[in-house]
Amino acid sequence: MSRRPGPRSDRADVRGDILDSARALFATRGFKGTTMRAVADGAGVDVALVPYYFGNKDGLFAATLELPVDPREKLDEIFAQGLDGIGERIARTMATLVDDEATGPAMLGLMRSAMTDGPAHDVVRDFIENVIIEGYARHLDAPHARRRAALAATQIVGLAMGRHVLRLEPLASMTVDEIVEHVGPTLQRYLEGA
Amino acid sequence: MSRRPGPRSDRADVRGDILDSARALFATRGFKGTTMRAVADGAGVDVALVPYYFGNKDGLFAATLELPVDPREKLDEIFAQGLDGIGERIARTMATLVDDEATGPAMLGLMRSAMTDGPAHDVVRDFIENVIIEGYARHLDAPHARRRAALAATQIVGLAMGRHVLRLEPLASMTVDEIVEHVGPTLQRYLEGA
Repeated sequence: MSRRPGPRSDRADVRGDILDSARALFATRGFKGTTMRAVADGAGVDVALVPYYFGNKDGLFAATLELPVDPREKLDEIFAQGLDGIGERIARTMATLVDDEATGPAMLGLMRSAMTDGPAHDVVRDFIENVIIEGYARHLDAPHARRRAALAATQIVGLAMGRHVLRLEPLASMTVDEIVEHVGPTLQRYLEGA
Repeated sequence: MSRRPGPRSDRADVRGDILDSARALFATRGFKGTTMRAVADGAGVDVALVPYYFGNKDGLFAATLELPVDPREKLDEIFAQGLDGIGERIARTMATLVDDEATGPAMLGLMRSAMTDGPAHDVVRDFIENVIIEGYARHLDAPHARRRAALAATQIVGLAMGRHVLRLEPLASMTVDEIVEHVGPTLQRYLEGA
């Protein structure tokens, strides 16, 4: 991480310093091995400033990945309406976010960087396992919650890849409604089925 | 493509010459724009030698990608037993091929190279659209056969990515039987469902 000269009070970019510190720690120690305190220490700021800017470790992680949405907030929103129709809500949310010019490129960039080995790969895997899959599992009161969430993740990743990276036809020209109609039941069964 | 000196009769590697010619043509003209005759002309061999070595254009394409199996043969095998249980057969075949040390690396390499832009991306997309999806659609006597096949492809690609590239847990340590149990019904619904 870079350090600019001068006393800390002269600098306004506390948020950027925290992000630099967090990126370095997530890449070397992984998500679980990184504490909010270590991030604060690395940035040379008071530990209270980390939650002040980023809420929690999930939010901080999402910010280091430059995700355009907070995955925890999205998950909370999706699960707030219960498990009924959850598959369709996830399919719609994901297809819309990935289709959107403002949010899609960052999400696809993340998936792409996970496909090559190296620190980026580990960071993205950590993120999917510890934020996304854990996030689903926290909301699911079902046996094998993590397995269910991981299976749902395969369909979501494969759909985004097929539609936006491989740009397979006729998939790429299907509407979000059509995607929801076909993929919603798959996600529903993974998350809630027998 | 490279040309070694000397008259053609001195050289034994007709097969390699055909592959070099085919790779160059698939990369520049795409799958549909490449004819067996153009491949033979590019290799400087009689057109009858292309089917002699590679069966048909699908087989030639698979060989240029160094696929360890002939996808057309695999598809024929899977569909020979009808649509009943087709989802489980596909899930088992794919999970087994990708898990296998002998066949997995080439298949994953193919998927990885499709994730970056450039000629490799186009070649792999061509392959999935024209060989895999077309292959499924040829066997499916159902409305929207290509759409069904494309949806199945998203689940297969996402599964391979999640299990072997992202190595997400608990997905990566699931057995092939467990994969078949969970993913089989998804593929069955995409290919045969209402």
